[in-house]
Amino acid sequence: MKIYLDCYPCFLKQALRAARLSRVDETQQNSILQQTLSLLQNIPSGATPPEIFYQIQHIVYQAADIPDPYLKLKELSTQQALALYPKLKALVRQSEDPLALAIRISIAGNIIDFGMSDQIADLWETVERVLQQPYAIDDTMALFSQLKNADHVLYLADNAGETVFDRILIEELAVPVVYAVKGSPVLNDAILHDALTAGLNRCSSLIDNGAQALGTIIGLSSEAFREEFKHAPVIIAKGQANYETLSDARSNIFYLLQVKCPVIGLDLDVPQGSIVVRQSMSKTLVQSGTNN
Amino acid sequence: MKIYLDCYPCFLKQALRAARLSRVDETQQNSILQQTLSLLQNIPSGATPPEIFYQIQHIVYQAADIPDPYLKLKELSTQQALALYPKLKALVRQSEDPLALAIRISIAGNIIDFGMSDQIADLWETVERVLQQPYAIDDTMALFSQLKNADHVLYLADNAGETVFDRILIEELAVPVVYAVKGSPVLNDAILHDALTAGLNRCSSLIDNGAQALGTIIGLSSEAFREEFKHAPVIIAKGQANYETLSDARSNIFYLLQVKCPVIGLDLDVPQGSIVVRQSMSKTLVQSGTNN
Repeated sequence: MKIYLDCYPCFLKQALRAARLSRVDETQQNSILQQTLSLLQNIPSGATPPEIFYQIQHIVYQAADIPDPYLKLKELSTQQALALYPKLKALVRQSEDPLALAIRISIAGNIIDFGMSDQIADLWETVERVLQQPYAIDDTMALFSQLKNADHVLYLADNAGETVFDRILIEELAVPVVYAVKGSPVLNDAILHDALTAGLNRCSSLIDNGAQALGTIIGLSSEAFREEFKHAPVIIAKGQANYETLSDARSNIFYLLQVKCPVIGLDLDVPQGSIVVRQSMSKTLVQSGTNN
Repeated sequence: MKIYLDCYPCFLKQALRAARLSRVDETQQNSILQQTLSLLQNIPSGATPPEIFYQIQHIVYQAADIPDPYLKLKELSTQQALALYPKLKALVRQSEDPLALAIRISIAGNIIDFGMSDQIADLWETVERVLQQPYAIDDTMALFSQLKNADHVLYLADNAGETVFDRILIEELAVPVVYAVKGSPVLNDAILHDALTAGLNRCSSLIDNGAQALGTIIGLSSEAFREEFKHAPVIIAKGQANYETLSDARSNIFYLLQVKCPVIGLDLDVPQGSIVVRQSMSKTLVQSGTNN
């Protein structure tokens, strides 16, 4: 996804939030802000919002010593989500269409996002909302169709805690899953430790993408991840940052997300607050009649 | 009030809003944003937020031809407020303390503020809320006391439409009032035309401050206004921008406002959403026991 002008104020906000979370003093916060202003005057054409955030994060990391400011929040998120795991499993068991329900649960988990807000969301309330809410974009039929012919799925994780909701979905998939997390801590995104705590090793092969960036920035990823990404027959990509960084890269990517940012809503042409299962390049596919 | 780091993202937002309201194309919006980024790298020490907004506005005006982008919104606000005028007068008539009630009504009118939001507020709902809401800072006793000895009041206006609510207060004051509006259009701030439409000429002497800036920036004001400001025995200053630009200038200024911006809330040490009657330098006065 391209950078919209509305992303600029948000970049400054994120720089400040990251600086404060890293507990640097006000002089350093000011310096981080000034460096971010310079950065924003020199954005290369074709850059995506998470690529800029990656550079902002780099500025903050140079000023601060805390390697993972979101450590405690991530552990809390995972524990809160694990506490719901039995209830979520029960919902799936009682459903007439367990896979469709598990997809919605996975999307509900996408509410855990400290990139958008410092507030801890009410997870169960979100589950109840997302189970009732109509999709703003619904390419689940195309996803089901591609899953039938796939020998495995590459699942691009998003946030710690959301991982538990992903597990619910993965346990309903009939094909093996490679679950890819971030290489190093960035915001509250899941790394290997977070995936293990959430029990993802019980239902998938875990890999990390080698990067310390939001979403999936191929140029920053490890060779091993790039190979997996290149050959994966179907990719499930969770959350806004994966959509922002990959957008219409290939037709076998399915974005599962809640639209929390107004600019992403604009880019997807759906209202903020929407839930979305969107196949990459799906506009083309809609025209050719292969999905709804 | 000083510029806080949290003001920076807001400056970019305001630049974009002003650019779009002036209907410049996306290339020009981008250019305005880039010029604002440069501006934010060179903020002089001691500057107030409205002084920076003044410079942003200057950048926008150079790109756009529309002399008063808020013209229609201002007229709509005045008409909506005038429609409530009889109901507001009835409230005052029925009150046991008409002056205290009129002060609250004047503060309720401060909800009309397109600097903070493009949304048109529900005016009557706001009146009902503000009439019930406890003050976060309440220096009304000090205001009453100063009014007793004053031969006139200088009333610094804020937004068009809010002017009608000011009129309700002015009509309850026992002393003559000089009502000062902006010299030229800036956001939805009232200029002479707006004050006349709202009927302020029926209850006060109208002057303009000669400036095209939010709040009261003395250095940009006309000689005539500066003289009036210098000698006014009591000043009632409406809205956030007057507080931001004047703050603790003199002890005879009374700020009447709703706290709509979190940073101003921080500066005043009150929650966002608060209503405030604050005497300038009131902390000193509280210590010496001359107000509550």
